[in-house]
Amino acid sequence: MTTKELLEKLDFKKGNGLIPVVVQDAQTKETLMLAYANREAVENTLKTKKATYWSRSRNELWVKGETSGHTQKIISVTTDCDYDALLYVVEQVGNVCHTGAATCFHNPLLQNTQKS
Amino acid sequence: MTTKELLEKLDFKKGNGLIPVVVQDAQTKETLMLAYANREAVENTLKTKKATYWSRSRNELWVKGETSGHTQKIISVTTDCDYDALLYVVEQVGNVCHTGAATCFHNPLLQNTQKS
Repeated sequence: MTTKELLEKLDFKKGNGLIPVVVQDAQTKETLMLAYANREAVENTLKTKKATYWSRSRNELWVKGETSGHTQKIISVTTDCDYDALLYVVEQVGNVCHTGAATCFHNPLLQNTQKS
Repeated sequence: MTTKELLEKLDFKKGNGLIPVVVQDAQTKETLMLAYANREAVENTLKTKKATYWSRSRNELWVKGETSGHTQKIISVTTDCDYDALLYVVEQVGNVCHTGAATCFHNPLLQNTQKS
């Protein structure tokens, strides 16, 4: 499918206009954060190659790093088998998390050290 | 924080009882899928070390692979800086996707081949 066809297939309805976006580091493959995008955010991401989201707290379009300088250059954008989630693979400038951590996922509930 | 304290902090309210879960392969670090968990699904995941979700289409608890055999053994469970997303790192048995693909994210909208 072409990019345009895939854009049309994206299922924004399930999440009241928003699709969850998994953000992964292109180099380390670390999962950096989870955010949300509306159609405008996805289109801006594809057009500018700057990771763009919809901020649910500020209720506005959010180009990651515009304030902090911690931008994300887009390497790839992929949607999943049922078109209701997105994956941005990015080159992260600086630290992704507002806490200064290198990933937003830094609170472990379980770490299984047993060998399989 | 302890696991119990983190469980209490998980913010199920924002998503009407559900938290999005990013699922990543422990070996390849590939992003495999995105699903949702309610509190019961998270607790079952922590207890059984089998990745458990809430199926929004079937409206029931969903132990991944119970029907297909394509189970996910939990290596770690982590929550993010604002406790409204989860990351399951798993050992995937067989292919994750119902289409037979090795990741659910297999529809590229953009692949940036330019060097930075």
